Amino acid sequence: MPSYTPPLRDMQFVLHELLNISEEFKMLPAHKDVDADTINAVLEEAGKFASQVIAPLNLSGDIEGCTLDKTTHEVKAPAGFKEAYAKYVEGGWAALSCDPEYGGQGLPITLNQCLYEMMNSANQAWTMYPGLSHGAYEALHAHGTPEQKSTYLPKLTSGEWTGTMCLTEPHCGTDLGMLRSKAEPQADGTYKITGQKIFISAGEHDLAANIVHLVLARLPDAPAGSKGISLFIVPKFLPKADGSIGERNTIFCSALEHKMGIHGNATAQIMLDGAVGTLVGQPNKGLNAMFVMMNAARLGVGNQSLGLTEVAYQNAVAYAKDRLQMRALSGPKAPDKPADPIIVHPDVRKMLLTARAYAEAGRAMAIWTALQIDKELSSDDEDERKECADHVALITPIIKAFLTDNAWIATSHCMQVFGGHGFIREWGMEQFVRDSRINMIYEGTNTIQSLDLLGRKILGDNGAKLKKFGKLVQEFVEAEGTNEAMQEFINPLADIGDKLTKLTTELGMKAFGNADEVGAAAVDYLRIAGHLVFAYFWARMAKVALEKQGSGDPFYKAKLATARFYFAKLLPETAGLIRSARAGLAPLMEMEEAHF
Amino acid sequence: MPSYTPPLRDMQFVLHELLNISEEFKMLPAHKDVDADTINAVLEEAGKFASQVIAPLNLSGDIEGCTLDKTTHEVKAPAGFKEAYAKYVEGGWAALSCDPEYGGQGLPITLNQCLYEMMNSANQAWTMYPGLSHGAYEALHAHGTPEQKSTYLPKLTSGEWTGTMCLTEPHCGTDLGMLRSKAEPQADGTYKITGQKIFISAGEHDLAANIVHLVLARLPDAPAGSKGISLFIVPKFLPKADGSIGERNTIFCSALEHKMGIHGNATAQIMLDGAVGTLVGQPNKGLNAMFVMMNAARLGVGNQSLGLTEVAYQNAVAYAKDRLQMRALSGPKAPDKPADPIIVHPDVRKMLLTARAYAEAGRAMAIWTALQIDKELSSDDEDERKECADHVALITPIIKAFLTDNAWIATSHCMQVFGGHGFIREWGMEQFVRDSRINMIYEGTNTIQSLDLLGRKILGDNGAKLKKFGKLVQEFVEAEGTNEAMQEFINPLADIGDKLTKLTTELGMKAFGNADEVGAAAVDYLRIAGHLVFAYFWARMAKVALEKQGSGDPFYKAKLATARFYFAKLLPETAGLIRSARAGLAPLMEMEEAHF
Repeated sequence: MPSYTPPLRDMQFVLHELLNISEEFKMLPAHKDVDADTINAVLEEAGKFASQVIAPLNLSGDIEGCTLDKTTHEVKAPAGFKEAYAKYVEGGWAALSCDPEYGGQGLPITLNQCLYEMMNSANQAWTMYPGLSHGAYEALHAHGTPEQKSTYLPKLTSGEWTGTMCLTEPHCGTDLGMLRSKAEPQADGTYKITGQKIFISAGEHDLAANIVHLVLARLPDAPAGSKGISLFIVPKFLPKADGSIGERNTIFCSALEHKMGIHGNATAQIMLDGAVGTLVGQPNKGLNAMFVMMNAARLGVGNQSLGLTEVAYQNAVAYAKDRLQMRALSGPKAPDKPADPIIVHPDVRKMLLTARAYAEAGRAMAIWTALQIDKELSSDDEDERKECADHVALITPIIKAFLTDNAWIATSHCMQVFGGHGFIREWGMEQFVRDSRINMIYEGTNTIQSLDLLGRKILGDNGAKLKKFGKLVQEFVEAEGTNEAMQEFINPLADIGDKLTKLTTELGMKAFGNADEVGAAAVDYLRIAGHLVFAYFWARMAKVALEKQGSGDPFYKAKLATARFYFAKLLPETAGLIRSARAGLAPLMEMEEAHF
Repeated sequence: MPSYTPPLRDMQFVLHELLNISEEFKMLPAHKDVDADTINAVLEEAGKFASQVIAPLNLSGDIEGCTLDKTTHEVKAPAGFKEAYAKYVEGGWAALSCDPEYGGQGLPITLNQCLYEMMNSANQAWTMYPGLSHGAYEALHAHGTPEQKSTYLPKLTSGEWTGTMCLTEPHCGTDLGMLRSKAEPQADGTYKITGQKIFISAGEHDLAANIVHLVLARLPDAPAGSKGISLFIVPKFLPKADGSIGERNTIFCSALEHKMGIHGNATAQIMLDGAVGTLVGQPNKGLNAMFVMMNAARLGVGNQSLGLTEVAYQNAVAYAKDRLQMRALSGPKAPDKPADPIIVHPDVRKMLLTARAYAEAGRAMAIWTALQIDKELSSDDEDERKECADHVALITPIIKAFLTDNAWIATSHCMQVFGGHGFIREWGMEQFVRDSRINMIYEGTNTIQSLDLLGRKILGDNGAKLKKFGKLVQEFVEAEGTNEAMQEFINPLADIGDKLTKLTTELGMKAFGNADEVGAAAVDYLRIAGHLVFAYFWARMAKVALEKQGSGDPFYKAKLATARFYFAKLLPETAGLIRSARAGLAPLMEMEEAHF
């Protein structure tokens, strides 16, 4: 069974040494007292919860899966999941970064980010139960009526109830404008909702007393397409006036999906048969309200893959140090043993370092982004709030798609390190690969993310958001321009920045002629943009490590070695991606549909 | 459930139009009568067997898996597997390219290649049962005593008995020199073999009356390491003098592995408890004898992934034409429908064309290689035999590693085309991904293949084999030098050829200084070499298609479009790979082992 050690040292490096986070928090009225000791204490406890309570349930949860009782429509999560969830609620983890007005602890999103990274490493399937709730919390916090807020937010904050997002229907996922579920207004101001939803993560389970479904449906007079969709709260049990649980609503789990991975999470088909709901936000503006949740969820999905990359790396390293097989080509490295540990082999190291470089840069990027959200939500300075919002908007599709593609590569590499044993369930490595695969699909496929990045976020505002991020890169490059030791990092960083700028201009011109040029280049483009962000964070991390390497702490030596590996072996991928992106649309459209 | 249509037209294109195979066979005494009609008739029947008999068992076999009776040590394959195998034997498919001396049909390996591609598309797990037998057949045919041959080859040829390869032990897979199983010579000339083997594919099952295990073990006086390993036949049931089945031997399946994929194949742990065996070939030369089987098996594994790439492509195309979702960015393409079929979206096309380009070039490469084997085995001309053997030696690790890495990418892309449905078992796409994953591991991991290519096959003979293949490329480039229409294909082909030559020289120099430089570059190098081979076959296929496009057959238009896609969107990957390979060993070794 795999093991998991919370990467507290590396988180602290990012928080304190790279981002100087306590100083950042001091500027935010809501978080001015969140000092380093508080942060470290929270992370240590969060790490214990992740590694001691939910990590031991990951493999067993995968093997057992969820079970539906077809008569009662009740679902049982795998053994131990319910008890672990009770501990989660008891520990107050659900409330960590929630609004104190509803019982939350009001701590920064940045800390929640670290909590979730660790929970995702420990058990992605389990973590989706509270993860979906947090999304529902955010959508209701932003768009709920005062009554909805007072009814639901305290329960979601405590974790007593969980939440879901009910979007997809059998004939539409990406294209929500086609959805058919109907909402009939009732005399009492509620709605009766009828329809079928599929792929509802955490859609039914025995972890919590009630489930707060957020459901997209159409009002009778709604315009066609995506401008006619409204958002409703449809609770499993209708709350009574005093907030306690009342009557069972007519929203049921009709089947569970058999999936490639995340077996421990109940992916439900949900039937709504005149289920009672209340409207969230404005009629026909449901997608806007849901996008609050979607954006948080997209960051959350990237974070799932960050967690999987880290845990796969840890286990592959342990195996590579332990497994004896063959001698190094350059001669025995452990002559006293029957063979060398496989970590001596260059390609084994390459696979391990790929995962490590992805995990560490992904962590820096994700924590930095969480900090931007905290600043966006809590800064006194409106310009700063706007600037941070722009950074978050730009980075969200990159975190979603780049980190999930990277995890697919990294978990597969880490499994490969185990040779044939990697393919065997009991070692747990193949589960990381299977679990990671869904992250490239849900909450908007990675193709959709790339269109969001290139089409909407970049070309859609004439590159303004990209320029803002580019300014950070430019400032850093200029600041280090005369620092001899930093040249090996800032030269390739400046180079990839220049290339991305040129490519963006070129694609903008092409898209002007034919909008499909965006779709032809977007996936390559997103990956190049991801590398620019990674190169930026690796250069910044290298700077800190260079300054501190004299301390004798091997952490900084390892950080520098990983940075050098990244620039030498991973960043070069962009050379091929740029060529492919520039090759444009024509090679994709020459084939007639009938000839495929 | 996925469907499968045998790609007979494309196979015929490769066989007849690209390779002019009947003319090639006319030069080989053993196959001089194998004309186009015979070939096409065999392929058509093979396609029916694959698509009608075993394809329908693929998904059900994955879901049901194999079951071991722990008291009898007997294994039941999934429902229908045994009956399908009976049809396979009855149809004479096992005998297709076997020696007529033992009841075989003596047809070219090239036809067996096509049969196996189709069976792998239809059902990889099932196909491994006869696939392993064929490997055992080849090892015994090359190294068996006359008595062993007359006892076992007729049964393996008919398919009445199946075979296995028992190599791996818990502590050694790649490093067979460490193996511990022991063989004690007996007075009657037999041996009693004791040990534990793991990961034995098709290791126990109910498809055939007897299983012929080929087992590696050590003689009492054997030298340590890989020079002290001998090969033994250890049948499940000891044959009587008349060839019928006798006493049960003490070789047992003690457990089945729980795996990520190929659930329909029994991956067995095998206990040998003084099991009776006979020596194959010379004492302590077992690895040599086994390598006959290993080389065939490596080509077979590449072929498994070729099959998966093709079937995943077919199903993704059908879905992409059928699934309506969103409008093309450039405006509606199916305005009469509620949304456009997703095949209009450039990135969906990119994913599909990637799989298609990998499948078609992989097929050309694999069939060409099979033809080299036929010529190596049957040509009258010793120089030609040697030349063909060199081609096969060079290409084998490329087929094994490049085609299996490509299938991992392609099956994942094809699954992605299905969006969320791709993650759901009933659609069958995620099974292709899971099944394809083992192919990167077994029969020598892809890292081992890359070391075999760069270290042994290329640097080990000063590039002689590479030069032979390079001569084919050079001749083609020169022949087309003045053909205007071919410039778009031969220019990038010549370019990647030049770059690979330069890189080879550079790596040879580096390896001279430190042998670990080979390991640092080998995986990147193999992928670049794979692209050179693909670029060569794509350019050759484009030439045929250009010549015939006037015929009005859309097949040639599609072939040209796929060729152009390959050069525009896939070959550019080499730009990044070359940079990574040239970055060398240092970035991989800087990190101290303790700091990982």
